[in-house]
Amino acid sequence: MAPGPDQTATVSPGDAFTWPVRVYYEDTDAGGVVYHAAYLKFFERARTEWLRHLGFDQSRVRIDDNALFAVRSMQIEFIRPARFDDMLAVSVRGAGARRASFRMAQAIRRQDGELLCEASVRVACVDASTFAPRAVPEKIRNALVGS
Amino acid sequence: MAPGPDQTATVSPGDAFTWPVRVYYEDTDAGGVVYHAAYLKFFERARTEWLRHLGFDQSRVRIDDNALFAVRSMQIEFIRPARFDDMLAVSVRGAGARRASFRMAQAIRRQDGELLCEASVRVACVDASTFAPRAVPEKIRNALVGS
Amino acid sequence: MAPGPDQTATVSPGDAFTWPVRVYYEDTDAGGVVYHAAYLKFFERARTEWLRHLGFDQSRVRIDDNALFAVRSMQIEFIRPARFDDMLAVSVRGAGARRASFRMAQAIRRQDGELLCEASVRVACVDASTFAPRAVPEKIRNALVGS
Amino acid sequence: MAPGPDQTATVSPGDAFTWPVRVYYEDTDAGGVVYHAAYLKFFERARTEWLRHLGFDQSRVRIDDNALFAVRSMQIEFIRPARFDDMLAVSVRGAGARRASFRMAQAIRRQDGELLCEASVRVACVDASTFAPRAVPEKIRNALVGS
Repeated sequence: MAPGPDQTATVSPGDAFTWPVRVYYEDTDAGGVVYHAAYLKFFERARTEWLRHLGFDQSRVRIDDNALFAVRSMQIEFIRPARFDDMLAVSVRGAGARRASFRMAQAIRRQDGELLCEASVRVACVDASTFAPRAVPEKIRNALVGS
Repeated sequence: MAPGPDQTATVSPGDAFTWPVRVYYEDTDAGGVVYHAAYLKFFERARTEWLRHLGFDQSRVRIDDNALFAVRSMQIEFIRPARFDDMLAVSVRGAGARRASFRMAQAIRRQDGELLCEASVRVACVDASTFAPRAVPEKIRNALVGS
Repeated sequence: MAPGPDQTATVSPGDAFTWPVRVYYEDTDAGGVVYHAAYLKFFERARTEWLRHLGFDQSRVRIDDNALFAVRSMQIEFIRPARFDDMLAVSVRGAGARRASFRMAQAIRRQDGELLCEASVRVACVDASTFAPRAVPEKIRNALVGS
Repeated sequence: MAPGPDQTATVSPGDAFTWPVRVYYEDTDAGGVVYHAAYLKFFERARTEWLRHLGFDQSRVRIDDNALFAVRSMQIEFIRPARFDDMLAVSVRGAGARRASFRMAQAIRRQDGELLCEASVRVACVDASTFAPRAVPEKIRNALVGS
């Protein structure tokens, strides 16, 4: 028996990848709304599922290429608060790849379409042992540019 | 386009409610596996979705009945570690209701069926303003006993 | 018996307020370093202790003024990773107050002085019930400008 | 300039080691109190500082002995809620060591002495690479038994 399809990703061609996230108590704080750092977790879940959707499990990438992805910088706007039990849509869209890093534009909307949070995120590829910058593996770079 | 049905709950009659949980970086620690307190979050997500499945959104219960559910005690066994990217099945089964609290048996298994974590959890119903114990709303109590 | 004075804040006149933070397992991830969203928690601990140092417990402000502080925007640079057991110094310095918000410059350094993370944070004052923007209480605004 | 000595541990001879923990927004949830899984983080911070106080940094133990400590089981009673801005005292006391694991009794009290949470925790020593159980390094075992 299935409670419903509310946790399935959507991708429109030429458009953003969108991952659904439900707000649980763990994500909220005593202000009564989602704790600000929790939005970063939601953004990362969407990036992880986007990479998986493109064919790349990061646990596999680490083994095969000894590479990790590390967030280098973020610019975040917290526009309206999300609340306990809200169903959110977290989007991610490629916004330019360089040799050793790539940029993504991300947004979080409530189910009714209201925009809650926006971020521009730069992720660098690093050596899993030394954390030194290294080139993004070519197959991933190609997928990111083509998506 | 849908990446797949991997985030849909299952309920067998007379059996446990099961909620799927994916392990993200946020859930792991430098030991390389899931941080022990993260399992408590997974257990709570499954309890929340079980209540929702029975017809009770906790945000609604708080408004309608001025009631919150608070964990009173837990006995947890951490059997084997879960890892980044693992897909987990978190189950919850009613194990007895009293006037002001109820008990649940919960388990976390990896997708291959391996048992990772087990817990016995007692949740009390409290007044949302004072945190004083109060009777579980009757409609919820009936649903829990009947499920 | 006291293990040592390593959790005491320092403030130099005309300089930043600095709050010590120890890295525990809860703050790390399977990459082996501090999880990126954990730095936001460290930044907030320092902001909270800075306000307390200036005479303002936020739990008190909420009761007395029905006001909450909510992060509106952040620009963060993740420069080098912190690791389990590291002792960090998290600084906060006022960088301009407006009627309903103020800006802070924050940094995280390892005990040896190495710069790990920098952020520019804008915090808005909101009504604790409605989350509507409101003026920063005057006594707080004066303290922030004077600090 | 130092805001005060409120983050210094205390140890009475023959008594428990106690570590101070301040409650921040990150630790609370929309119920208005500390999120139940956050108490597990507080317990672990006290265990980590107790080991450090006995001479053992876990990051050092991992390098020197290739050993990690992993929580195997916990029995927790959540007695009263802690709130934002509360100052807590988290205690840990050895309660028996075996070859490959040891047990601790832990408690969390509010500054006024009110008991909020109690736990019995069993921690196992595991190989850092394979997570297989292994003997607790002798110098640590001796220190735990003697403390």
